[in-house]
Amino acid sequence: MRVTVIPRTEEINEIKEKTVVIIDVLRATTSMVAALANGAKQIIPFLTPQEAKGYATHSGDFLLCGERKGVKLSGFDLGNSPREFTRERVENKTLLMTTTNGTRAINQSLSAKHIFIASALNVQALVERLKSEREVVIVCAGTKGKFSLDDFAMAGLVISFLEKNNDIDLDDLGVAAKLLLKDRTLYSLLAASHHGERLENLGFNEDLVYCSQVGVINLVPYYDAGVIKI
Amino acid sequence: MRVTVIPRTEEINEIKEKTVVIIDVLRATTSMVAALANGAKQIIPFLTPQEAKGYATHSGDFLLCGERKGVKLSGFDLGNSPREFTRERVENKTLLMTTTNGTRAINQSLSAKHIFIASALNVQALVERLKSEREVVIVCAGTKGKFSLDDFAMAGLVISFLEKNNDIDLDDLGVAAKLLLKDRTLYSLLAASHHGERLENLGFNEDLVYCSQVGVINLVPYYDAGVIKI
Repeated sequence: MRVTVIPRTEEINEIKEKTVVIIDVLRATTSMVAALANGAKQIIPFLTPQEAKGYATHSGDFLLCGERKGVKLSGFDLGNSPREFTRERVENKTLLMTTTNGTRAINQSLSAKHIFIASALNVQALVERLKSEREVVIVCAGTKGKFSLDDFAMAGLVISFLEKNNDIDLDDLGVAAKLLLKDRTLYSLLAASHHGERLENLGFNEDLVYCSQVGVINLVPYYDAGVIKI
Repeated sequence: MRVTVIPRTEEINEIKEKTVVIIDVLRATTSMVAALANGAKQIIPFLTPQEAKGYATHSGDFLLCGERKGVKLSGFDLGNSPREFTRERVENKTLLMTTTNGTRAINQSLSAKHIFIASALNVQALVERLKSEREVVIVCAGTKGKFSLDDFAMAGLVISFLEKNNDIDLDDLGVAAKLLLKDRTLYSLLAASHHGERLENLGFNEDLVYCSQVGVINLVPYYDAGVIKI
């Protein structure tokens, strides 16, 4: 299996017909996994709050979810903290979600063969699903156009699980991500990232702990035709 | 001191009036440092072998140096192995040098205020020279347009020395490079890189050992007006 790492959304290219794994570990892809595990019907990602609000005027049982600068959008039902996506809030609902980085990464990956949603929570299920793939591209969303240590560390976690049961051929970014995580916890690297630090300053330290839980959810959300589902 | 890392030549931007450190540890910048330590008068970098050969038709005591795909160019005096740049070969000579990645990185950095040449050999002298700077940009040349683990590890070495005596503010790439090198030797990461592996396959394993020597040369080469000197 050939595994390559794209360090930020802006560098996505050459993914046509490949299998893509989307990482925005703090916090969009973690929230997506949590929401679907708690019974959300589906998630529709939007690039802008306006688009999400526009869609919400249709009939349906929707929740508006999303953030800008880490904070819940005005007039929205939920922000982007995975701890908000409880069964009580999301069960059987369609989530209309817009986040700064995660939804952009998905939107730039539409030419891929498969688009899977990754978090630490579902890393083992994800890796099990990837085992028959010949070529996997791990897309780190990054933060506001820049490399983000949190997503890169999560790429290292995916790789460390992939190599347990597969013969993998890594590019240099993949080797770096794997070695960076080796002998470290994901939490320590999330906390060392500027994004993680900013979330802590906003009072979201518990989100870093939540996003660092490895293999607690046995689902692999995927994106298809505008919708994220399981 | 604000320290940022550029992971490959193609991402160089916003360096105007900043102090730039160029890294092509395997092997161009290491060879430059070795050559000047062994008495070379100056080094003139060229993007192409043709330009270097054209310049050599001028009068002067020149040596043509350079590689493509790691191998010495046909008709050239020296390749790009730092072990070739002995006092016997280079003393008082002007070196006309063209390499795949290092000279391109320098050429893309011409708007900088200062351009310093970095290798493990001169990392301590380099860091001493940088101590009064407010903003340092570490440019990893990369390999053929891609992120290269060898240069990124060397960026980590520069940062680990910088933070010994300076209060530094790192971007996420800088944090990643620093943590990647922590508790590892530079050699182990050079050997883990695809570029290092290719050099080993070409029979240059001793070059990886040579390029991993820390702080053995007390010089800081800089680029100015087309020439690298000390």
